[in-house]
Amino acid sequence: MESLGITPLRHRTQHMNTLCSRLRPKLPPASLRFRSLFCSCSLARELAEVAVSETQGTDNAAARKRSSGGSGNGRARVGDRVRVKVSDAQLKQNWIDSLSCPIADGGGDVSCGSGGLDWVLGIDPDVSGAVAVLKPSELGCTAQVFDSPFIPVLVGKKVRKRLDPKSIVQLLRSLDAPLGTRAYIEQSIPYPQDGKQGWWSGGFGYGLWIGILVTSGFSVVPVPSLLWKNGFDLSGSRSTKDDSRLLASKLFPSLSDQLKRKKDHGRAEALLIAAHGKGLKVEFDLPSISKN
Amino acid sequence: MESLGITPLRHRTQHMNTLCSRLRPKLPPASLRFRSLFCSCSLARELAEVAVSETQGTDNAAARKRSSGGSGNGRARVGDRVRVKVSDAQLKQNWIDSLSCPIADGGGDVSCGSGGLDWVLGIDPDVSGAVAVLKPSELGCTAQVFDSPFIPVLVGKKVRKRLDPKSIVQLLRSLDAPLGTRAYIEQSIPYPQDGKQGWWSGGFGYGLWIGILVTSGFSVVPVPSLLWKNGFDLSGSRSTKDDSRLLASKLFPSLSDQLKRKKDHGRAEALLIAAHGKGLKVEFDLPSISKN
Repeated sequence: MESLGITPLRHRTQHMNTLCSRLRPKLPPASLRFRSLFCSCSLARELAEVAVSETQGTDNAAARKRSSGGSGNGRARVGDRVRVKVSDAQLKQNWIDSLSCPIADGGGDVSCGSGGLDWVLGIDPDVSGAVAVLKPSELGCTAQVFDSPFIPVLVGKKVRKRLDPKSIVQLLRSLDAPLGTRAYIEQSIPYPQDGKQGWWSGGFGYGLWIGILVTSGFSVVPVPSLLWKNGFDLSGSRSTKDDSRLLASKLFPSLSDQLKRKKDHGRAEALLIAAHGKGLKVEFDLPSISKN
Repeated sequence: MESLGITPLRHRTQHMNTLCSRLRPKLPPASLRFRSLFCSCSLARELAEVAVSETQGTDNAAARKRSSGGSGNGRARVGDRVRVKVSDAQLKQNWIDSLSCPIADGGGDVSCGSGGLDWVLGIDPDVSGAVAVLKPSELGCTAQVFDSPFIPVLVGKKVRKRLDPKSIVQLLRSLDAPLGTRAYIEQSIPYPQDGKQGWWSGGFGYGLWIGILVTSGFSVVPVPSLLWKNGFDLSGSRSTKDDSRLLASKLFPSLSDQLKRKKDHGRAEALLIAAHGKGLKVEFDLPSISKN
């Protein structure tokens, strides 16, 4: 046991900073975009503190008493002076903003450019899911789909599949997608009948993909499954995962060989989520695809 | 509705690649490290397929029949010829490897250097958690702790706190930590009595932090709470979150003002997880800290 020689610590330099106070000195004063990012960060913390305390019954009774918000609305007290009503739409937009390129890195304006607008990723974030890529090519549009890399891990005495973080990062880097490329990911909404382990896994996969995508410079767009399925007439109890594979095979016929097995439904759903993100629509009476 | 002009798709260039076949042409043949990374990726997929099918009762009956593994062991069939028994320890190591710097980017050898060995991060991944930073300074060791940034989001009609991905990325970048810095994160092990929403949130926060950290070039080390708590005599039902705050205040006295409130336990735990990662030990009979 080697002595570190750091006792007592009273005379050492130690700091306790909140995120925003820490970031403040790093902000270049001339950068409007950067100041705006900081303000949104600062405001977000205020919103969070008040909105959550109001809706989850924590100890901010005074704030609760002064508010007159309806269900689902957040209220922000900024600097103990002004109250700002935050709509449900604003809460959603704040979340989308937190998932979107650019990420300021303290060096001034950061631009995502417009190169990413032509590319789209579609992601089924389950451990048996996949990531699809639609990108422009000389022939119009190239589609690819990759099974999500996973590794077996020990959970207690059981071996379970888990998404492989390093391989996902490598896969995304190998795509050479433009900064700011939109990545549509199916929102994680577990079924009530799923077990707790399923709920944990759903949250883990969703969080892992979002963390990797945001850090890699993608603009993440969560999509409820009902939304993309409705667009392809796949919602409702009559639709099955086989229908997803059939439709994906029709939309991307040269990939149909890779969509034949039941377990290929993750590939099919990733392709359909990407197609939804790209604005592709199926005209069910005609064998054609159009763009909305 | 604008026509995309991509019907029919039969004559267009479309590809279906697995991760490994996609990465193969990108591997520089002269790079041993890169070849080794590829092999481990390829093997991992084989391991995953066999180990999981054997332990979760999927349709690989023949593989199950041929195996003679005990509980918790994975068996890999590589190229339909060789069977390799994979120990529990190897499964754990594979997972750690998947969380560790370096990440090859197709450009040859990637080195994390040794600068990160002096830095340590400690992370309580809950939405009310924090990240602590211990880094070398002229005075020996500097400690900082930051509340995890979060934003309010709508979940159904409720407003809930959720970790703020973009702000976490910005916070980590602002640290200027060396590539490969070890980031000790408390393993997410929800309590059985927690509700399903708690299990989902636990998985989401854990996945999000891991995704951001791995992509940012940290080497992530998951730590079961029992492990770091045992080291500080904080395990067992008699220990409370107040004890964590008390101990963190003793270890880092100049931060004690920031650890006074009950809700500061996330900060305290992040500091203690970092101290555990740094190898700090408390000698309970003496008011001193030493390094193991």
